[in-house]
Amino acid sequence: MPETITYPTERLREFSQRTFMHFGVPAADARLASEVLAASDLRGIDSHGVARLHTYFDMLDAGRINPAPKLEIVRESPSTATVDGDNGLGLVVGPRANEIAMEKAAGAGSGWVSVRNTNHYGIAGYYVLEALERDLIGWSMTNTTKLVAPLWGAARMLGTNPIAIGFPGKEEPPVVIDLATCAAAYGKIEIAKRKGEPVPAGWAIDGDGRATADPDAMVEGGALLPLGSDRERGGHKGYCLAVMVDFLCAVLSGANWGPFTPPFALRQEIPERSVGKGIGHFFGAMRIDAFIDPDEFKAQTDEYVRTLRATPPAPGTAGPLIPGDPEREAEATRTVEGVPLVLPVVEELRDISRRTGIPLD
Amino acid sequence: MPETITYPTERLREFSQRTFMHFGVPAADARLASEVLAASDLRGIDSHGVARLHTYFDMLDAGRINPAPKLEIVRESPSTATVDGDNGLGLVVGPRANEIAMEKAAGAGSGWVSVRNTNHYGIAGYYVLEALERDLIGWSMTNTTKLVAPLWGAARMLGTNPIAIGFPGKEEPPVVIDLATCAAAYGKIEIAKRKGEPVPAGWAIDGDGRATADPDAMVEGGALLPLGSDRERGGHKGYCLAVMVDFLCAVLSGANWGPFTPPFALRQEIPERSVGKGIGHFFGAMRIDAFIDPDEFKAQTDEYVRTLRATPPAPGTAGPLIPGDPEREAEATRTVEGVPLVLPVVEELRDISRRTGIPLD
Repeated sequence: MPETITYPTERLREFSQRTFMHFGVPAADARLASEVLAASDLRGIDSHGVARLHTYFDMLDAGRINPAPKLEIVRESPSTATVDGDNGLGLVVGPRANEIAMEKAAGAGSGWVSVRNTNHYGIAGYYVLEALERDLIGWSMTNTTKLVAPLWGAARMLGTNPIAIGFPGKEEPPVVIDLATCAAAYGKIEIAKRKGEPVPAGWAIDGDGRATADPDAMVEGGALLPLGSDRERGGHKGYCLAVMVDFLCAVLSGANWGPFTPPFALRQEIPERSVGKGIGHFFGAMRIDAFIDPDEFKAQTDEYVRTLRATPPAPGTAGPLIPGDPEREAEATRTVEGVPLVLPVVEELRDISRRTGIPLD
Repeated sequence: MPETITYPTERLREFSQRTFMHFGVPAADARLASEVLAASDLRGIDSHGVARLHTYFDMLDAGRINPAPKLEIVRESPSTATVDGDNGLGLVVGPRANEIAMEKAAGAGSGWVSVRNTNHYGIAGYYVLEALERDLIGWSMTNTTKLVAPLWGAARMLGTNPIAIGFPGKEEPPVVIDLATCAAAYGKIEIAKRKGEPVPAGWAIDGDGRATADPDAMVEGGALLPLGSDRERGGHKGYCLAVMVDFLCAVLSGANWGPFTPPFALRQEIPERSVGKGIGHFFGAMRIDAFIDPDEFKAQTDEYVRTLRATPPAPGTAGPLIPGDPEREAEATRTVEGVPLVLPVVEELRDISRRTGIPLD
């Protein structure tokens, strides 16, 4: 286990908020953005919480993200809208656009919002949780900087393009699905690289498009493989899902897609050309009572959850998890005990603290 | 290559139509159902075309499917509806419900229809092609009889629950995505079983939940694995996608879900209890002009397709395919040359011919 320092969630959230405000992000927006990051840390998705604050810091510092965007609905119908995020933080544009989807659902039964000219929006699952607060089925997708090869391709052409959706229960917790459409997260490759260990088959290719177990070969010019890994095990399916997300988020909104998606971090290369504005998100909200009695729906969700939990377990396991279980477990622990940060992340926060004068410890 | 007999598509379509009419399916419905099957054969998805006619025959013959259903909208909003399929053929209920989604989209920008009390609806991609005919982005999902284990489960609890979606191009063909959420199709296990060959790692588990390469062990009480296969390569993701489809198709409509989904064929076991009506589908239709100028969208689709085709190929491949390529290629060939059927399928059709008096050859 790497050495960690544990911080109360609220301290980290406030630190993030003040960091955003340092660059002129309005207080309400900074609060919102900090809540998205805190939700990620609380739910145990360490890669998407304050571990990314320094990247946002760098991008704001370099003037690459607009701290005070004016969102605009550029087209709409009773159940749909396209939003231009004015190159704001995805952590601000995302929640506001999701809000529009939920408002549309109130009127039309469902609401669907495609967003362009935005930036990295944190965990896809956050937006689904917001919808669940209002008893809605929420959908959330985003495209991201290129990192994944299409099946049979030898280059990074697609993002890790996640899909999230949530369904409320009555006595049981909600079913919260949140998955990237690649076989394994880039963070896992980085961990193996640091340890000097090989990665499992099916995760990565090298710069020539050959399957590789060498994390360095992936990092230096290789690519992640799509969910399913290879043709035999359905790698074409993960590739198709990544393309689906790209179309809904970017082609539909007028954002950049595929290899033209702009970088999330300063160190990443800038694509040779642009085919749209910023990156893209896609949000959906469905009113349950537009389909079925919500009480009946939730009772069935409960029964669904209990049925899955009663599945005979595979050898060496405790049986299937319910989508959202690992995050709920992390949240229960971290609400009480705080969020453990590895030292490199603490160092990044301390660097922000030194450069802004915002106290961390 | 197994021995085949080739038939003109139209001859098979007509044979299917007359078979359905034999059981009292109205002519227009029988025509529709036969077109769904023919589309599958034409597009090279042999498992879902006339190869399944005998199963529909058996279910109609046993009175398990209503030949003349009256569809009912049981709940609706401007952009949504829930349809009761009156236990009709999915090949009839599906197209009619998809039609309702497309009509909703005309008025509200998007239309979303969840369907209960229906049966197997053929290929998911058919419904997307119908939407493309009207310049709509079409979505199609269905739940199916249990065949897949949740990750870390040792029993069949979920269907192969496919997801399809399509995006129109201008000069390039549309991007047509159609994928089952399991690692490999059951049909591939059956082929290996017939040949007495092992199946690749990641496809299946035996009745105890252990990974197996023995197709017999999967067929006799084992299960298929979800897309991603195991925890390391993202099997939890395929499992989550199958659950998502189940919720949208069945929990949302009031159909049976998970292990309670009724059998597609006579030989399959009937679940111990019912939690809803029939199986479920989910259809979506989005008007492109509710989001963006359709001409701009299609021009971007063209560029997307060309960009993917220009990906450097992985060694030993010709580079990435565009979703829908294999089906388009099959259609181009089979429109001219006809549909090759393996002898066991021909024998099934001949059996129908003998029992109904409908000529085949």
